[in-house]
Amino acid sequence: MPSPRNATAAVIGAGDFIGSAIAERFARVGYTVVAGRRTAEKLQPLVEKIERGGGRCIGRALDARKEDDITAFLEEADKIAPLEVCIFNPGANVNFPVLETTERVFRKVWEMACYAGFLTGREAARRMLAHGQGTILFTGATASLRGGKGYAAFASAKFGLRAVAQSMARELGPKNIHVAHLIIDAGVDTAFVRERIRERGGEVAVAGIKPDQLMNPASVAEAYWQLHAQTRDAWTFELDLRPYGETW
Amino acid sequence: MPSPRNATAAVIGAGDFIGSAIAERFARVGYTVVAGRRTAEKLQPLVEKIERGGGRCIGRALDARKEDDITAFLEEADKIAPLEVCIFNPGANVNFPVLETTERVFRKVWEMACYAGFLTGREAARRMLAHGQGTILFTGATASLRGGKGYAAFASAKFGLRAVAQSMARELGPKNIHVAHLIIDAGVDTAFVRERIRERGGEVAVAGIKPDQLMNPASVAEAYWQLHAQTRDAWTFELDLRPYGETW
Amino acid sequence: MPSPRNATAAVIGAGDFIGSAIAERFARVGYTVVAGRRTAEKLQPLVEKIERGGGRCIGRALDARKEDDITAFLEEADKIAPLEVCIFNPGANVNFPVLETTERVFRKVWEMACYAGFLTGREAARRMLAHGQGTILFTGATASLRGGKGYAAFASAKFGLRAVAQSMARELGPKNIHVAHLIIDAGVDTAFVRERIRERGGEVAVAGIKPDQLMNPASVAEAYWQLHAQTRDAWTFELDLRPYGETW
Amino acid sequence: MPSPRNATAAVIGAGDFIGSAIAERFARVGYTVVAGRRTAEKLQPLVEKIERGGGRCIGRALDARKEDDITAFLEEADKIAPLEVCIFNPGANVNFPVLETTERVFRKVWEMACYAGFLTGREAARRMLAHGQGTILFTGATASLRGGKGYAAFASAKFGLRAVAQSMARELGPKNIHVAHLIIDAGVDTAFVRERIRERGGEVAVAGIKPDQLMNPASVAEAYWQLHAQTRDAWTFELDLRPYGETW
Repeated sequence: MPSPRNATAAVIGAGDFIGSAIAERFARVGYTVVAGRRTAEKLQPLVEKIERGGGRCIGRALDARKEDDITAFLEEADKIAPLEVCIFNPGANVNFPVLETTERVFRKVWEMACYAGFLTGREAARRMLAHGQGTILFTGATASLRGGKGYAAFASAKFGLRAVAQSMARELGPKNIHVAHLIIDAGVDTAFVRERIRERGGEVAVAGIKPDQLMNPASVAEAYWQLHAQTRDAWTFELDLRPYGETW
Repeated sequence: MPSPRNATAAVIGAGDFIGSAIAERFARVGYTVVAGRRTAEKLQPLVEKIERGGGRCIGRALDARKEDDITAFLEEADKIAPLEVCIFNPGANVNFPVLETTERVFRKVWEMACYAGFLTGREAARRMLAHGQGTILFTGATASLRGGKGYAAFASAKFGLRAVAQSMARELGPKNIHVAHLIIDAGVDTAFVRERIRERGGEVAVAGIKPDQLMNPASVAEAYWQLHAQTRDAWTFELDLRPYGETW
Repeated sequence: MPSPRNATAAVIGAGDFIGSAIAERFARVGYTVVAGRRTAEKLQPLVEKIERGGGRCIGRALDARKEDDITAFLEEADKIAPLEVCIFNPGANVNFPVLETTERVFRKVWEMACYAGFLTGREAARRMLAHGQGTILFTGATASLRGGKGYAAFASAKFGLRAVAQSMARELGPKNIHVAHLIIDAGVDTAFVRERIRERGGEVAVAGIKPDQLMNPASVAEAYWQLHAQTRDAWTFELDLRPYGETW
Repeated sequence: MPSPRNATAAVIGAGDFIGSAIAERFARVGYTVVAGRRTAEKLQPLVEKIERGGGRCIGRALDARKEDDITAFLEEADKIAPLEVCIFNPGANVNFPVLETTERVFRKVWEMACYAGFLTGREAARRMLAHGQGTILFTGATASLRGGKGYAAFASAKFGLRAVAQSMARELGPKNIHVAHLIIDAGVDTAFVRERIRERGGEVAVAGIKPDQLMNPASVAEAYWQLHAQTRDAWTFELDLRPYGETW
């Protein structure tokens, strides 16, 4: 059972895989995790799992695209205990040819993956600056560095999020806020990724997934933890993550 | 007097400097230029200048953030003569510390510099594909590659625009549409830039601007023209532009 | 017949394709071309072709890895007429798994593709600085940006050459020397590339090469010319070139 | 006292600061460290310090630019116990205007910072492949990504080393060898860096160095350790390191 810290770690986009694994990783070392996602009920298994392990986790319905909502969410976290870590881990991966990308999709993907990240980072920083410290981590993807075919909407949002992270890191680093950006450059072992493998290659392909071919969410979460654990004389802004067998 | 071509060049963001210079460059070789900016009256000097030179230019009020408006604008251009060139040259440079960047500013800058670019590119491509050819050029900036201090909003939008350009280039190149992105990585000789130099260093600084220290809009426009003039066996996706004396 | 200029353009690595095309391009506008490659006899067809067109070209055996040789070569060029343009266009593409890359190969590829480029650039700059102007252009490749499988030697040399180009551009730009680097990011139509296509897909594949699928050396050469033609208030340091149908 | 592992960690370029700190870090968790640098006597303090702490360290004179020497060095390490970690940490930072960069300096810096890295990586990989696993870490710098003024030689070598690391990572990752590249993008607290600060700002500047303004070698070493500790389903190829207050 972790000895509790007087600090919260907010996870925005606490989905079933990476987001949950990050929440568990920080709960394991005593942080009170405040987890947000669109549907609060879906957070119940995470909350229960963390509590069974002796940790503390609060789940909240959250639409991080709404300024008032994300502000209230982080405000609540900061009242429970000083907000020390904030992780922005949106899910908004879509693929459409550019000519079939509606303005609605383009806007929505940006709101989820970039605009919400800006709001989250800004509001987290406000609270952390009051405490004189903190860590803000943004989840990036292959599409953060490359606008591939079919990724006009998604890559545009992820490029934009990376710029926000860079600007924040340059402005807030000297104020003792560690801002970092992780490039998840391969498939994490999620239901979504397995489904895509199934679509392409059928059950045979899914059955043929080799050990460590997909990233274990817990392994990804470990990288988030290590970034937070860095001493401030040697901070990383950006790192990439991919499995050993990945072609890149 | 140029011999007219049966083709239009649309310039979205036909401001007083780069946008106007691009319009003049394409008018000079016979394109009918269809120029759009927020306030139609401000286009009058450009239209008159081009017409005095024997060229053709049509000015239209345009808010490229409105899907119906940009669609109608390009539709009109394509009716005058086949749309062959489309240049997206927004002006949206702002600088605010991230904590002072309102959600309104962040959204507006994105709408002007990125979202409008997506709409423009998509709608231009639709018309060009019908003709089997075309060139779409996006204006980038230093902030397309670097999220500097105070540039969370602007860099985020410019990074996002670059991703759109990359995705479009990869999808549309094989369909004979040349998509390119120009990194304007220094000051162009505009009223805005001279004003910033004045703010920092006073009249002395403005008076001390050396020849070729700032980019002449006509020189920048030449690069747009050369990209369009490339044969399709050797297309450039991206190039940078800066004056000889610039520190980078 | 071009009206002659009192200026030389040196082409180091004046191979049968890109190098020769560049030589022809500059000869066409009146430069005396001084072309160097390992075997002087192989330059004879180029010299004759240029002379038949009314231009001037001098061919010299050159091992640009030898400091004295490249110095003498550029010295000779500069004596014929002021050295105004210098193009470094080495050929050193090899592919070996890293474990099968001998130290001899690694060193030789570096000497040809990087070290010779440093010597060439430095010696060209010395002469150009005396005249107060000049253009130095370096040929890059996909491997300038990406260390792919089998490219430890070649990519290492091309990365290194790009660094030389960057440092030179930053140091010499303010002294009115235009240094640029071109990323040739696809197959140029050369005997070497056709042979590789043949190896992979047989005669059928070669026969199936579509128009504009490979870059015409003359199209590539045009980009070199345009870089040199830029006015100094808007210089490009880097651009990429690839055919319209290329996947990247 | 660490419980010993049956594994060696080779440190090539075991200088007084980063190299020594890395050696200590791996010794602390039980690796037998095999440390190499030009002058064996200078390794004595490191060996003694590690041994006092209950660890094991062997110091060897090493010129990693000599194929036979680096091969013998790694062979010896692999005989002591299976070679599991190899760190290439050269010191070759020089700054000369390109026109004052002699061919000797250009070549020597490349041999030390790039060519030796290639030899080291290749020979380490050979031994690790026999064991089915291993980690090879390369030390990069700001100059790995940017060819700044005065850095033609150093940046060229560091760019080249990064390409080697990329090619090796792509080839060897699927064979269970983790290859990574660390960008040390700021001053580490070394005698060299303090001397440069002294040169620029005098004793006052040295006295004014703030806590955590320079990177502690031990903090840098921690990043090397964490990369090695990553599970193979989520490996990082590249990360950057700089102090919180650094301008970048």
